[in-house]
Amino acid sequence: MKLIESVPNFSEGRREEIVRQIIEEASKYPKVKVLDWSMDKDHNRSVVTLVGEPEQVLNALFDMTKKAAELIDLRYHKGEHPRMGATDVIPLVPLIGTTMQECVEWSKQLGKRIGEELGIPVYLYERSATRPERENLSEIRKGEFEGFFEKIKDPKWKPDFGPDRVHETAGVTAVGAREFLIAFNVNLGTNNIEIADKIAKAVRHISGGYRYVKAMGVELKEKGIVQVSMNLTNYKKSPIFRVFETIKREAARYGVPVVGSEIIGMVPLQAIVDTFAWYLQIDDFGTNRVIEERLLNELTKEE
Amino acid sequence: MKLIESVPNFSEGRREEIVRQIIEEASKYPKVKVLDWSMDKDHNRSVVTLVGEPEQVLNALFDMTKKAAELIDLRYHKGEHPRMGATDVIPLVPLIGTTMQECVEWSKQLGKRIGEELGIPVYLYERSATRPERENLSEIRKGEFEGFFEKIKDPKWKPDFGPDRVHETAGVTAVGAREFLIAFNVNLGTNNIEIADKIAKAVRHISGGYRYVKAMGVELKEKGIVQVSMNLTNYKKSPIFRVFETIKREAARYGVPVVGSEIIGMVPLQAIVDTFAWYLQIDDFGTNRVIEERLLNELTKEE
Repeated sequence: MKLIESVPNFSEGRREEIVRQIIEEASKYPKVKVLDWSMDKDHNRSVVTLVGEPEQVLNALFDMTKKAAELIDLRYHKGEHPRMGATDVIPLVPLIGTTMQECVEWSKQLGKRIGEELGIPVYLYERSATRPERENLSEIRKGEFEGFFEKIKDPKWKPDFGPDRVHETAGVTAVGAREFLIAFNVNLGTNNIEIADKIAKAVRHISGGYRYVKAMGVELKEKGIVQVSMNLTNYKKSPIFRVFETIKREAARYGVPVVGSEIIGMVPLQAIVDTFAWYLQIDDFGTNRVIEERLLNELTKEE
Repeated sequence: MKLIESVPNFSEGRREEIVRQIIEEASKYPKVKVLDWSMDKDHNRSVVTLVGEPEQVLNALFDMTKKAAELIDLRYHKGEHPRMGATDVIPLVPLIGTTMQECVEWSKQLGKRIGEELGIPVYLYERSATRPERENLSEIRKGEFEGFFEKIKDPKWKPDFGPDRVHETAGVTAVGAREFLIAFNVNLGTNNIEIADKIAKAVRHISGGYRYVKAMGVELKEKGIVQVSMNLTNYKKSPIFRVFETIKREAARYGVPVVGSEIIGMVPLQAIVDTFAWYLQIDDFGTNRVIEERLLNELTKEE
């Protein structure tokens, strides 16, 4: 079984009929499953989770990008979330039986098609990046749609694929391979935002913490508590249980308890099994010991 | 998706060609998957794990029982594990989209067929038991094959199905519905078996512990340590994480660390997800948040 995931972001989060038409493009492919999608009105942005056989996922993503370029006009787009394209970003994630290197290759194939056939400039990011300054998506996106008409003239920001000018209505798009991302938030039994900020600093990479953790303190005003809000960008190397235990210990330093956590979206079985085995101190335990995983393997073997 | 599991035990653990012929019977059914099987020479016994669509699983189990009766002659069977039948015991376990009550019904259908068509006396056990003294399999099996020729004459031990006399070569068989069983062992950093025994007593139902825990102390002579060896007979009601944390606390009382654990065989996703969510203090997390589970649902939906 060869499976990749993609979580394309589209710059439309208010008109549901538009989002549905974009998603509809994926349903033409029998080996692509739309596992989840959500719209955010404030951000004016939608996020779709696709999983499937790599070739069909690439075709579905191309068709969705084409449809988004037809239906979304960025000149009239307003929202809180920074954006530069109708299809803003397309990450490819190795899931089962596929490697990061393969996803890098596929991101280049997809980027080339979008650039050449749709006339939309494409930037390769994260693991697919062709220059260090393009690894970080927020660096690419700086200036957003409006600023890109100038930015693209800088030779440093020549697109990896497609024309050297911004698409008038669909902007520019980032495509790249990355690891699975887990959005993990830990709630603290205090309303003191300084403590959440200090703990976020302690665990995040940029200020000396775990290499694959991005974190910030957030106030949950309705609940009257604060939260350490995180993206775990490589759960295999900076695992969820280690980050969680470090946060508990740091919070205890301030006499603050951890009152709960939340995970946004879906999680790969491997991350759950690793956590299970770590807490129960089991040395030889893998996903092949999970009944449902074995069934999935049996079912996909037959195809 | 409707799925049940069965883990039939056969009284042959030395001649692999015999065990393979029995397992072969299951492969005639496309919606039955043999997830695992193992032979034990000392016990002279084999254990097969089947998962599948209920009707086909029942047919497969009948055919396997028939084949075992043809190939195994209990008059010549010696092994460390107590046994009373060529097919010794057939548990039916509700897995996905099926209930305990359905499994009880199915165990009766299967028992009736084995009794009437194969002439093998059948005892319903566990949740299918027709009398309290038949709930516990070891009560039924007392006296074993050799003793059953007398035992069966006692009206108290009249079989639920089949003739009132032991099958000359295939003995008698127990069939019943039960919850999924997790074999879970916790290793202690000591060679003092008394401590393992005391902790086993503290957590097991029979001596006042958790309702769905069977436990005993075991010496691991090669490793020079002791172990609390358990069967968790209902992981939903006496969950693995609670039992594990209690053992850690009890061990600490003796100044002994837990040095590791092991799980024998397979585990349902629900048990792993429950443990994950408990340790990470997540309130609303279910198996539907696991990518592989969603894929499995998508794939089986189409059939």
